[in-house]
Amino acid sequence: MQRSALAWRRRGARIGFVPTMGYLHAGHISLVKRARRLVGPKGIVVVSIFVNPAQFAPTEDMARYPRDLARDRQLCREAGTDLLFVPHEKEIYPQGFSTHVVEEKLSQSMEGASRPTHFRGVTTVVLKLFNIVLPEVAVFGAKDFQQAAVVRRMVKDLNVPVKIIIAPTVRERDGLAMSSRNKYLEGDLRAQAVVLSQALARAREAVSNGRAVTSAALRSELRALIERQPAARVDYIEFFDPETLEKVEWVGRDSHMAMAVFIGNTRLIDNVSLAGGTK
Amino acid sequence: MQRSALAWRRRGARIGFVPTMGYLHAGHISLVKRARRLVGPKGIVVVSIFVNPAQFAPTEDMARYPRDLARDRQLCREAGTDLLFVPHEKEIYPQGFSTHVVEEKLSQSMEGASRPTHFRGVTTVVLKLFNIVLPEVAVFGAKDFQQAAVVRRMVKDLNVPVKIIIAPTVRERDGLAMSSRNKYLEGDLRAQAVVLSQALARAREAVSNGRAVTSAALRSELRALIERQPAARVDYIEFFDPETLEKVEWVGRDSHMAMAVFIGNTRLIDNVSLAGGTK
Repeated sequence: MQRSALAWRRRGARIGFVPTMGYLHAGHISLVKRARRLVGPKGIVVVSIFVNPAQFAPTEDMARYPRDLARDRQLCREAGTDLLFVPHEKEIYPQGFSTHVVEEKLSQSMEGASRPTHFRGVTTVVLKLFNIVLPEVAVFGAKDFQQAAVVRRMVKDLNVPVKIIIAPTVRERDGLAMSSRNKYLEGDLRAQAVVLSQALARAREAVSNGRAVTSAALRSELRALIERQPAARVDYIEFFDPETLEKVEWVGRDSHMAMAVFIGNTRLIDNVSLAGGTK
Repeated sequence: MQRSALAWRRRGARIGFVPTMGYLHAGHISLVKRARRLVGPKGIVVVSIFVNPAQFAPTEDMARYPRDLARDRQLCREAGTDLLFVPHEKEIYPQGFSTHVVEEKLSQSMEGASRPTHFRGVTTVVLKLFNIVLPEVAVFGAKDFQQAAVVRRMVKDLNVPVKIIIAPTVRERDGLAMSSRNKYLEGDLRAQAVVLSQALARAREAVSNGRAVTSAALRSELRALIERQPAARVDYIEFFDPETLEKVEWVGRDSHMAMAVFIGNTRLIDNVSLAGGTK
Protein backbone atom coordinates (compact mmCIF):
# COMPACT_ATOMS: atom_id res chain seq x y z
CA MET A 1 0.00 0.00 0.00
CA GLN A 2 2.71 2.50 1.00
CA ARG A 3 4.78 1.67 -2.08
CA SER A 4 1.74 2.32 -4.29
CA ALA A 5 1.02 5.56 -2.45
CA LEU A 6 4.62 6.75 -2.82
CA ALA A 7 4.49 5.97 -6.55
CA TRP A 8 1.16 7.81 -6.94
CA ARG A 9 2.51 10.83 -5.09
CA ARG A 10 5.68 10.83 -7.20
CA ARG A 11 3.65 11.06 -10.37
CA GLY A 12 1.59 13.88 -8.85
CA ALA A 13 -1.67 12.02 -8.14
CA ARG A 14 -3.94 13.37 -5.41
CA ILE A 15 -4.93 10.78 -2.81
CA GLY A 16 -8.17 11.03 -0.83
CA PHE A 17 -8.64 8.69 2.11
CA VAL A 18 -11.58 7.37 4.14
CA PRO A 19 -10.53 5.21 7.13
CA THR A 20 -13.33 2.95 8.37
CA MET A 21 -13.99 -0.13 10.51
CA GLY A 22 -16.12 -1.63 7.73
CA TYR A 23 -19.72 -2.82 7.75
CA LEU A 24 -20.34 0.22 5.61
CA HIS A 25 -23.54 2.23 5.52
CA ALA A 26 -24.78 5.35 3.75
CA GLY A 27 -22.75 7.52 6.15
CA HIS A 28 -19.49 5.92 4.99
CA ILE A 29 -20.55 6.13 1.37
CA SER A 30 -21.14 9.87 1.73
CA LEU A 31 -17.50 10.15 2.96
CA VAL A 32 -16.23 8.20 -0.05
CA LYS A 33 -18.16 10.44 -2.42
CA ARG A 34 -16.85 13.52 -0.63
CA ALA A 35 -13.29 12.21 -0.99
CA ARG A 36 -13.91 11.73 -4.71
CA ARG A 37 -15.14 15.30 -5.11
CA LEU A 38 -12.09 16.55 -3.19
CA VAL A 39 -9.46 14.79 -5.31
CA GLY A 40 -11.30 14.97 -8.64
CA PRO A 41 -11.87 12.30 -11.28
CA LYS A 42 -8.12 11.76 -11.79
CA GLY A 43 -7.43 11.50 -8.05
CA ILE A 44 -7.17 8.23 -6.17
CA VAL A 45 -9.72 7.38 -3.48
CA VAL A 46 -8.55 4.86 -0.86
CA VAL A 47 -10.89 3.31 1.72
CA SER A 48 -9.42 1.30 4.59
CA ILE A 49 -11.28 -1.28 6.63
CA PHE A 50 -9.63 -2.15 9.92
CA VAL A 51 -11.43 -3.07 13.12
CA ASN A 52 -8.74 -1.59 15.32
CA PRO A 53 -8.21 -3.61 18.51
CA ALA A 54 -6.31 -0.73 20.14
CA GLN A 55 -9.42 1.42 20.33
CA PHE A 56 -11.57 -1.23 22.02
CA ALA A 57 -11.33 -2.06 25.70
CA PRO A 58 -11.25 -5.80 26.56
CA THR A 59 -14.85 -5.48 27.85
CA GLU A 60 -16.16 -3.95 24.64
CA ASP A 61 -17.71 -5.29 21.42
CA MET A 62 -14.59 -5.88 19.29
CA ALA A 63 -15.23 -9.61 18.84
CA ARG A 64 -18.83 -9.20 17.77
CA TYR A 65 -18.32 -5.96 15.82
CA PRO A 66 -20.24 -6.58 12.56
CA ARG A 67 -18.23 -7.57 9.49
CA ASP A 68 -19.23 -8.19 5.86
CA LEU A 69 -16.25 -7.72 3.59
CA ALA A 70 -17.97 -8.94 0.41
CA ARG A 71 -20.75 -6.40 0.83
CA ASP A 72 -18.27 -3.64 1.80
CA ARG A 73 -16.24 -4.35 -1.32
CA GLN A 74 -19.34 -4.07 -3.49
CA LEU A 75 -20.42 -0.80 -1.84
CA CYS A 76 -16.94 0.69 -2.23
CA ARG A 77 -16.84 -0.24 -5.89
CA GLU A 78 -20.23 1.35 -6.52
CA ALA A 79 -19.17 4.51 -4.66
CA GLY A 80 -16.09 4.93 -6.87
CA THR A 81 -13.30 3.66 -4.60
CA ASP A 82 -10.00 3.07 -6.40
CA LEU A 83 -8.38 0.98 -3.70
CA LEU A 84 -9.78 -0.85 -0.70
CA PHE A 85 -7.05 -1.38 1.93
CA VAL A 86 -7.82 -4.18 4.40
CA PRO A 87 -4.69 -4.80 6.49
CA HIS A 88 -4.33 -7.73 8.89
CA GLU A 89 -4.02 -7.02 12.58
CA LYS A 90 -0.49 -8.45 12.63
CA GLU A 91 0.61 -6.10 9.86
CA ILE A 92 -0.61 -3.08 11.83
CA TYR A 93 0.59 -4.29 15.24
CA PRO A 94 3.50 -6.65 14.65
CA GLN A 95 5.41 -8.41 17.40
CA GLY A 96 7.36 -5.86 19.45
CA PHE A 97 5.10 -2.92 18.59
CA SER A 98 5.67 -0.29 21.29
CA THR A 99 4.92 3.21 19.98
CA HIS A 100 1.74 5.17 20.59
CA VAL A 101 0.35 8.57 19.75
CA VAL A 102 -1.48 10.24 22.62
CA GLU A 103 -3.57 13.40 22.62
CA GLU A 104 -3.93 14.61 26.19
CA LYS A 105 -6.51 17.38 26.25
CA LEU A 106 -9.44 16.97 23.86
CA SER A 107 -9.44 13.22 24.45
CA GLN A 108 -10.02 13.38 28.22
CA SER A 109 -13.78 14.02 28.39
CA MET A 110 -16.84 12.15 27.06
CA GLU A 111 -15.71 9.14 24.97
CA GLY A 112 -12.26 9.40 26.53
CA ALA A 113 -13.69 9.38 30.05
CA SER A 114 -16.01 6.44 29.32
CA ARG A 115 -13.41 4.57 27.26
CA PRO A 116 -9.97 5.45 28.75
CA THR A 117 -7.71 3.84 26.10
CA HIS A 118 -10.00 4.54 23.14
CA PHE A 119 -8.46 7.71 21.68
CA ARG A 120 -4.90 6.54 22.12
CA GLY A 121 -5.90 3.62 19.88
CA VAL A 122 -7.56 5.99 17.42
CA THR A 123 -4.71 8.49 17.12
CA THR A 124 -2.11 5.74 16.81
CA VAL A 125 -3.92 3.85 14.06
CA VAL A 126 -4.94 7.00 12.18
CA LEU A 127 -1.35 8.25 12.10
CA LYS A 128 -0.18 4.81 10.94
CA LEU A 129 -2.83 4.69 8.21
CA PHE A 130 -1.92 8.22 7.10
CA ASN A 131 1.74 7.20 6.83
CA ILE A 132 0.80 4.11 4.83
CA VAL A 133 -1.81 5.67 2.51
CA LEU A 134 -0.10 9.10 2.29
CA PRO A 135 -3.29 11.01 1.50
CA GLU A 136 -3.48 14.69 0.71
CA VAL A 137 -6.96 14.76 2.27
CA ALA A 138 -8.83 12.45 4.64
CA VAL A 139 -12.57 12.50 5.34
CA PHE A 140 -14.10 11.73 8.74
CA GLY A 141 -17.74 11.66 9.81
CA ALA A 142 -19.20 14.29 12.14
CA LYS A 143 -21.05 11.57 14.06
CA ASP A 144 -17.77 10.87 15.86
CA PHE A 145 -17.43 14.54 16.75
CA GLN A 146 -14.82 14.16 19.48
CA GLN A 147 -12.81 11.73 17.36
CA ALA A 148 -12.74 14.29 14.55
CA ALA A 149 -11.57 16.99 16.99
CA VAL A 150 -8.85 14.74 18.41
CA VAL A 151 -7.63 13.70 14.95
CA ARG A 152 -7.54 17.33 13.81
CA ARG A 153 -5.55 18.30 16.89
CA MET A 154 -3.14 15.39 16.37
CA VAL A 155 -2.63 16.35 12.72
CA LYS A 156 -1.97 19.97 13.67
CA ASP A 157 0.30 19.16 16.62
CA LEU A 158 2.41 16.62 14.71
CA ASN A 159 2.49 18.67 11.48
CA VAL A 160 0.99 15.77 9.53
CA PRO A 161 0.67 16.95 5.90
CA VAL A 162 -2.94 15.77 5.55
CA LYS A 163 -6.03 17.97 5.27
CA ILE A 164 -8.89 16.75 7.51
CA ILE A 165 -12.45 17.17 6.24
CA ILE A 166 -15.43 16.50 8.50
CA ALA A 167 -18.58 15.43 6.64
CA PRO A 168 -22.08 15.69 8.13
CA THR A 169 -23.79 12.84 9.93
CA VAL A 170 -26.15 10.83 7.72
CA ARG A 171 -29.42 9.84 9.41
CA GLU A 172 -32.17 7.32 8.90
CA ARG A 173 -35.54 8.71 7.91
CA ASP A 174 -36.65 8.79 11.58
CA GLY A 175 -33.54 10.66 12.72
CA LEU A 176 -31.34 7.84 14.03
CA ALA A 177 -27.70 8.51 13.10
CA MET A 178 -26.30 5.86 10.78
CA SER A 179 -23.94 3.50 12.60
CA SER A 180 -22.63 0.00 12.03
CA ARG A 181 -23.74 -0.70 15.59
CA ASN A 182 -27.40 -0.06 14.71
CA LYS A 183 -27.34 -3.66 13.51
CA TYR A 184 -27.34 -4.72 17.17
CA LEU A 185 -30.76 -3.08 17.74
CA GLU A 186 -33.15 -6.03 17.66
CA GLY A 187 -36.90 -6.01 18.19
CA ASP A 188 -38.30 -2.76 19.52
CA LEU A 189 -34.84 -1.47 20.53
CA ARG A 190 -34.56 0.07 17.06
CA ALA A 191 -37.66 2.19 17.73
CA GLN A 192 -36.43 3.19 21.21
CA ALA A 193 -33.09 4.36 19.71
CA VAL A 194 -34.86 7.25 18.00
CA VAL A 195 -34.85 8.96 21.38
CA LEU A 196 -31.22 10.06 20.86
CA SER A 197 -32.07 12.29 17.92
CA GLN A 198 -35.23 13.44 19.71
CA ALA A 199 -33.07 14.58 22.60
CA LEU A 200 -30.78 16.50 20.24
CA ALA A 201 -33.82 18.19 18.68
CA ARG A 202 -35.15 19.09 22.12
CA ALA A 203 -31.79 20.64 23.09
CA ARG A 204 -31.75 22.76 19.93
CA GLU A 205 -35.27 23.86 20.64
CA ALA A 206 -34.39 24.73 24.25
CA VAL A 207 -31.82 27.34 23.14
CA SER A 208 -33.50 28.38 19.87
CA ASN A 209 -34.91 31.58 21.35
CA GLY A 210 -31.34 32.76 21.97
CA ARG A 211 -31.55 32.42 25.75
CA ALA A 212 -28.99 30.29 27.58
CA VAL A 213 -30.00 27.51 29.95
CA THR A 214 -27.86 25.83 32.58
CA SER A 215 -26.22 22.61 31.52
CA ALA A 216 -27.47 20.91 34.73
CA ALA A 217 -31.12 21.76 33.99
CA LEU A 218 -30.94 20.80 30.32
CA ARG A 219 -29.09 17.58 31.10
CA SER A 220 -31.75 16.57 33.65
CA GLU A 221 -34.52 17.27 31.22
CA LEU A 222 -32.88 15.30 28.41
CA ARG A 223 -31.96 12.42 30.67
CA ALA A 224 -35.60 12.13 31.76
CA LEU A 225 -36.75 12.30 28.13
CA ILE A 226 -34.29 9.58 27.10
CA GLU A 227 -34.80 7.26 30.04
CA ARG A 228 -38.54 7.31 29.50
CA GLN A 229 -37.62 4.60 26.97
CA PRO A 230 -37.46 1.38 28.99
CA ALA A 231 -34.20 0.08 27.45
CA ALA A 232 -32.38 3.45 27.46
CA ARG A 233 -29.68 4.44 29.95
CA VAL A 234 -27.63 7.62 29.59
CA ASP A 235 -23.84 7.22 29.76
CA TYR A 236 -23.16 10.95 29.41
CA ILE A 237 -24.74 14.12 28.07
CA GLU A 238 -22.29 17.01 27.65
CA PHE A 239 -22.52 20.60 26.49
CA PHE A 240 -19.25 22.18 25.41
CA ASP A 241 -17.34 24.61 23.25
CA PRO A 242 -17.01 22.95 19.81
CA GLU A 243 -13.38 24.11 19.40
CA THR A 244 -11.86 23.39 22.80
CA LEU A 245 -14.40 20.74 23.94
CA GLU A 246 -14.43 22.55 27.29
CA LYS A 247 -17.67 22.04 29.20
CA VAL A 248 -19.98 25.04 29.50
CA GLU A 249 -22.11 25.89 32.51
CA TRP A 250 -24.50 27.94 30.41
CA VAL A 251 -25.66 26.29 27.20
CA GLY A 252 -26.37 28.56 24.25
CA ARG A 253 -26.49 28.51 20.49
CA ASP A 254 -22.68 28.61 20.36
CA SER A 255 -22.52 25.33 22.31
CA HIS A 256 -22.25 21.81 21.02
CA MET A 257 -23.96 18.80 22.60
CA ALA A 258 -22.82 15.18 22.56
CA MET A 259 -24.08 12.08 24.28
CA ALA A 260 -23.64 8.37 24.69
CA VAL A 261 -26.69 6.27 25.49
CA PHE A 262 -27.07 2.56 26.02
CA ILE A 263 -30.10 1.09 24.27
CA GLY A 264 -30.13 -2.33 25.88
CA ASN A 265 -26.51 -3.49 25.58
CA THR A 266 -25.77 -1.30 22.57
CA ARG A 267 -23.91 1.92 23.23
CA LEU A 268 -24.82 4.64 20.71
CA ILE A 269 -23.39 8.14 20.36
CA ASP A 270 -24.73 11.24 18.68
CA ASN A 271 -24.06 14.97 18.72
CA VAL A 272 -25.30 18.24 17.32
CA SER A 273 -24.38 21.89 17.04
CA LEU A 274 -26.94 23.89 19.00
CA ALA A 275 -26.51 26.71 16.48
CA GLY A 276 -29.27 24.93 14.58
CA GLY A 277 -29.15 23.32 11.16
CA THR A 278 -30.58 19.92 10.43
CA LYS A 279 -27.54 17.64 10.77
CA MET B 1 9.60 24.56 5.35
CA GLN B 2 6.84 22.00 4.77
CA ARG B 3 5.62 23.83 1.67
CA SER B 4 9.15 23.78 0.23
CA ALA B 5 9.51 20.11 1.09
CA LEU B 6 6.18 19.22 -0.57
CA ALA B 7 7.24 21.15 -3.70
CA TRP B 8 10.63 19.38 -3.78
CA ARG B 9 8.98 16.00 -3.36
CA ARG B 10 6.47 16.79 -6.12
CA ARG B 11 9.26 17.48 -8.56
CA GLY B 12 10.97 14.24 -7.52
CA ALA B 13 13.85 15.65 -5.45
CA ARG B 14 15.39 13.42 -2.79
CA ILE B 15 15.57 15.02 0.66
CA GLY B 16 18.19 14.03 3.23
CA PHE B 17 17.78 15.29 6.78
CA VAL B 18 20.03 15.79 9.80
CA PRO B 19 18.15 16.93 12.93
CA THR B 20 20.43 18.58 15.51
CA MET B 21 20.37 20.77 18.62
CA GLY B 22 23.08 22.99 17.10
CA TYR B 23 26.51 23.96 18.43
CA LEU B 24 27.78 21.72 15.69
CA HIS B 25 30.97 19.71 15.80
CA ALA B 26 32.77 17.26 13.54
CA GLY B 27 30.28 14.54 14.49
CA HIS B 28 27.37 16.55 13.10
CA ILE B 29 29.35 17.47 10.00
CA SER B 30 29.97 13.77 9.31
CA LEU B 31 26.17 13.27 9.40
CA VAL B 32 25.63 16.12 6.93
CA LYS B 33 28.19 14.68 4.57
CA ARG B 34 26.61 11.24 4.90
CA ALA B 35 23.22 12.74 4.04
CA ARG B 36 24.74 14.35 0.95
CA ARG B 37 26.20 11.04 -0.21
CA LEU B 38 22.83 9.36 0.36
CA VAL B 39 20.76 11.82 -1.72
CA GLY B 40 23.42 12.60 -4.32
CA PRO B 41 24.53 15.95 -5.75
CA LYS B 42 21.02 16.79 -7.00
CA GLY B 43 19.37 15.89 -3.71
CA ILE B 44 18.49 18.40 -1.03
CA VAL B 45 20.21 18.25 2.36
CA VAL B 46 18.30 19.87 5.23
CA VAL B 47 19.82 20.42 8.69
CA SER B 48 17.57 21.50 11.56
CA ILE B 49 18.72 23.22 14.73
CA PHE B 50 16.23 23.07 17.57
CA VAL B 51 17.10 22.85 21.25
CA ASN B 52 13.99 20.88 22.10
CA PRO B 53 12.58 21.81 25.52
CA ALA B 54 10.44 18.65 25.59
CA GLN B 55 13.49 16.42 25.91
CA PHE B 56 15.01 18.31 28.85
CA ALA B 57 13.77 17.94 32.41
CA PRO B 58 13.31 21.21 34.34
CA THR B 59 16.46 20.35 36.35
CA GLU B 60 18.63 19.87 33.27
CA ASP B 61 20.89 22.09 31.19
CA MET B 62 18.42 23.44 28.61
CA ALA B 63 18.99 27.10 29.53
CA ARG B 64 22.77 26.89 29.35
CA TYR B 65 22.93 24.46 26.40
CA PRO B 66 25.59 25.99 24.14
CA ARG B 67 24.40 27.98 21.13
CA ASP B 68 26.28 29.66 18.26
CA LEU B 69 24.02 30.05 15.26
CA ALA B 70 26.44 32.15 13.20
CA ARG B 71 29.12 29.48 13.50
CA ASP B 72 26.61 26.67 12.87
CA ARG B 73 25.44 28.42 9.71
CA GLN B 74 28.99 28.70 8.45
CA LEU B 75 29.75 25.04 9.22
CA CYS B 76 26.56 23.89 7.49
CA ARG B 77 27.37 25.96 4.42
CA GLU B 78 30.87 24.49 4.22
CA ALA B 79 29.51 20.96 4.63
CA GLY B 80 27.12 21.38 1.70
CA THR B 81 23.79 21.98 3.43
CA ASP B 82 21.04 23.24 1.12
CA LEU B 83 18.69 24.45 3.82
CA LEU B 84 19.19 25.19 7.51
CA PHE B 85 15.85 24.97 9.37
CA VAL B 86 15.82 26.81 12.70
CA PRO B 87 12.24 26.87 14.00
CA HIS B 88 11.15 28.91 17.00
CA GLU B 89 9.93 27.09 20.09
CA LYS B 90 6.44 28.58 19.65
CA GLU B 91 6.21 27.26 16.11
CA ILE B 92 7.01 23.74 17.27
CA TYR B 93 4.92 23.85 20.46
CA PRO B 94 2.16 26.41 19.90
CA GLN B 95 -0.49 27.29 22.49
CA GLY B 96 -2.78 24.30 23.03
CA PHE B 97 -0.25 21.69 21.91
CA SER B 98 -1.38 18.38 23.41
CA THR B 99 -0.18 15.43 21.30
CA HIS B 100 2.83 13.25 22.06
CA VAL B 101 4.52 10.23 20.59
CA VAL B 102 5.62 7.67 23.17
CA GLU B 103 7.78 4.59 22.72
CA GLU B 104 7.24 2.30 25.67
CA LYS B 105 9.82 -0.48 25.53
CA LEU B 106 13.25 0.55 24.24
CA SER B 107 12.94 3.92 25.96
CA GLN B 108 12.54 2.57 29.50
CA SER B 109 16.14 1.75 30.43
CA MET B 110 19.36 3.79 30.60
CA GLU B 111 18.70 7.36 29.36
CA GLY B 112 14.96 6.77 29.80
CA ALA B 113 15.44 5.63 33.40
CA SER B 114 17.74 8.54 34.26
CA ARG B 115 15.68 11.09 32.27
CA PRO B 116 12.03 9.93 32.46
CA THR B 117 10.45 12.37 29.96
CA HIS B 118 13.46 12.54 27.63
CA PHE B 119 12.49 10.06 24.92
CA ARG B 120 8.89 11.19 24.75
CA GLY B 121 10.30 14.61 23.89
CA VAL B 122 12.65 13.08 21.33
CA THR B 123 10.09 10.91 19.52
CA THR B 124 7.54 13.74 19.44
CA VAL B 125 9.91 16.31 17.99
CA VAL B 126 11.53 13.89 15.55
CA LEU B 127 8.13 12.88 14.14
CA LYS B 128 7.16 16.55 13.86
CA LEU B 129 10.41 17.41 12.10
CA PHE B 130 9.98 14.45 9.74
CA ASN B 131 6.47 15.66 8.87
CA ILE B 132 7.76 19.19 8.25
CA VAL B 133 10.95 18.33 6.31
CA LEU B 134 9.50 15.20 4.58
CA PRO B 135 12.87 13.52 4.09
CA GLU B 136 13.44 10.25 2.27
CA VAL B 137 16.37 9.56 4.57
CA ALA B 138 17.48 10.93 7.95
CA VAL B 139 20.89 10.50 9.55
CA PHE B 140 21.46 10.10 13.30
CA GLY B 141 24.70 9.67 15.24
CA ALA B 142 25.61 6.38 16.92
CA LYS B 143 26.78 8.27 20.01
CA ASP B 144 23.13 8.50 21.03
CA PHE B 145 22.70 4.76 20.60
CA GLN B 146 19.47 4.37 22.53
CA GLN B 147 17.97 7.43 20.83
CA ALA B 148 18.75 5.89 17.44
CA ALA B 149 17.11 2.62 18.51
CA VAL B 150 14.01 4.41 19.82
CA VAL B 151 13.69 6.54 16.67
CA ARG B 152 14.08 3.46 14.46
CA ARG B 153 11.38 1.66 16.46
CA MET B 154 9.05 4.67 16.26
CA VAL B 155 9.56 4.93 12.50
CA LYS B 156 8.83 1.24 12.06
CA ASP B 157 5.83 1.18 14.43
CA LEU B 158 4.19 4.27 12.92
CA ASN B 159 5.04 3.34 9.30
CA VAL B 160 6.87 6.64 8.81
CA PRO B 161 8.17 6.66 5.21
CA VAL B 162 11.70 7.74 6.21
CA LYS B 163 14.85 5.63 6.07
CA ILE B 164 16.96 5.95 9.23
CA ILE B 165 20.74 5.81 8.87
CA ILE B 166 23.01 5.59 11.92
CA ALA B 167 26.48 7.06 11.38
CA PRO B 168 29.48 6.20 13.56
CA THR B 169 30.54 8.27 16.55
CA VAL B 170 33.30 10.77 15.78
CA ARG B 171 35.97 11.04 18.48
CA GLU B 172 38.64 13.47 19.53
CA ARG B 173 42.22 12.34 19.07
CA ASP B 174 42.35 11.05 22.67
CA GLY B 175 39.14 9.03 22.32
CA LEU B 176 36.55 11.39 23.84
CA ALA B 177 33.32 11.19 21.83
CA MET B 178 32.44 14.50 20.17
CA SER B 179 29.59 16.25 21.97
CA SER B 180 28.31 19.81 22.21
CA ARG B 181 28.43 19.31 25.98
CA ASN B 182 32.21 18.82 25.90
CA LYS B 183 32.31 22.63 25.92
CA TYR B 184 31.32 22.47 29.62
CA LEU B 185 34.55 20.60 30.50
CA GLU B 186 36.75 23.31 31.98
CA GLY B 187 40.22 22.98 33.43
CA ASP B 188 41.39 19.42 33.99
CA LEU B 189 37.83 18.02 33.60
CA ARG B 190 38.53 17.67 29.87
CA ALA B 191 41.44 15.32 30.63
CA GLN B 192 39.39 13.32 33.15
CA ALA B 193 36.62 12.82 30.57
CA VAL B 194 38.90 10.54 28.56
CA VAL B 195 38.09 7.86 31.11
CA LEU B 196 34.77 7.13 29.33
CA SER B 197 36.46 5.91 26.17
CA GLN B 198 39.08 4.13 28.27
CA ALA B 199 36.28 2.21 29.99
CA LEU B 200 34.79 1.24 26.63
CA ALA B 201 38.19 0.01 25.47
CA ARG B 202 38.64 -1.99 28.66
CA ALA B 203 35.21 -3.62 28.20
CA ARG B 204 36.08 -4.63 24.62
CA GLU B 205 39.35 -6.06 25.86
CA ALA B 206 37.60 -8.00 28.66
CA VAL B 207 35.52 -10.01 26.16
CA SER B 208 38.02 -10.02 23.27
CA ASN B 209 39.15 -13.60 23.96
CA GLY B 210 35.57 -14.76 23.24
CA ARG B 211 34.80 -15.65 26.85
CA ALA B 212 31.75 -14.09 28.53
CA VAL B 213 32.01 -12.24 31.83
CA THR B 214 29.19 -11.38 34.22
CA SER B 215 27.73 -7.91 33.84
CA ALA B 216 28.03 -7.36 37.60
CA ALA B 217 31.76 -8.08 37.63
CA LEU B 218 32.51 -6.01 34.53
CA ARG B 219 30.36 -3.13 35.78
CA SER B 220 32.23 -3.09 39.10
CA GLU B 221 35.60 -3.09 37.40
CA LEU B 222 34.64 -0.28 35.02
CA ARG B 223 33.02 1.77 37.76
CA ALA B 224 36.24 1.56 39.77
CA LEU B 225 38.29 2.50 36.72
CA ILE B 226 36.07 5.52 35.98
CA GLU B 227 35.70 6.76 39.52
CA ARG B 228 39.45 6.74 39.99
CA GLN B 229 39.10 10.14 38.30
CA PRO B 230 38.28 12.56 41.12
CA ALA B 231 35.47 14.40 39.27
CA ALA B 232 33.89 11.28 37.74
CA ARG B 233 30.67 9.68 39.00
CA VAL B 234 28.93 6.86 37.14
CA ASP B 235 25.20 7.34 36.45
CA TYR B 236 24.81 3.94 34.76
CA ILE B 237 26.82 1.29 32.96
CA GLU B 238 24.68 -1.21 31.03
CA PHE B 239 25.37 -4.27 28.91
CA PHE B 240 22.57 -5.28 26.57
CA ASP B 241 21.41 -6.84 23.33
CA PRO B 242 21.92 -4.18 20.64
CA GLU B 243 18.56 -4.99 18.95
CA THR B 244 16.17 -5.32 21.89
CA LEU B 245 18.22 -3.27 24.42
CA GLU B 246 17.45 -6.04 26.92
CA LYS B 247 20.05 -6.28 29.67
CA VAL B 248 22.33 -9.31 29.59
CA GLU B 249 23.65 -11.16 32.61
CA TRP B 250 26.60 -12.53 30.69
CA VAL B 251 28.49 -10.02 28.58
CA GLY B 252 30.03 -11.28 25.36
CA ARG B 253 31.13 -10.05 21.96
CA ASP B 254 27.48 -9.94 20.84
CA SER B 255 26.68 -7.44 23.60
CA HIS B 256 26.59 -3.68 23.46
CA MET B 257 27.69 -1.40 26.28
CA ALA B 258 26.44 2.09 27.10
CA MET B 259 27.07 4.43 29.97
CA ALA B 260 26.39 7.86 31.39
CA VAL B 261 29.03 9.47 33.57
CA PHE B 262 29.09 12.80 35.33
CA ILE B 263 32.40 14.62 35.00
CA GLY B 264 31.85 17.36 37.54
CA ASN B 265 28.40 18.69 36.69
CA THR B 266 28.57 17.60 33.07
CA ARG B 267 26.75 14.41 32.15
CA LEU B 268 28.40 12.60 29.25
CA ILE B 269 27.26 9.44 27.45
CA ASP B 270 29.12 6.98 25.28
CA ASN B 271 28.64 3.45 23.97
CA VAL B 272 30.34 0.74 21.99
CA SER B 273 29.69 -2.59 20.36
CA LEU B 274 31.72 -5.21 22.18
CA ALA B 275 32.10 -7.05 18.88
CA GLY B 276 35.18 -4.90 18.42
CA GLY B 277 35.88 -2.24 15.82
CA THR B 278 37.23 1.16 16.62
CA LYS B 279 34.08 3.29 16.81
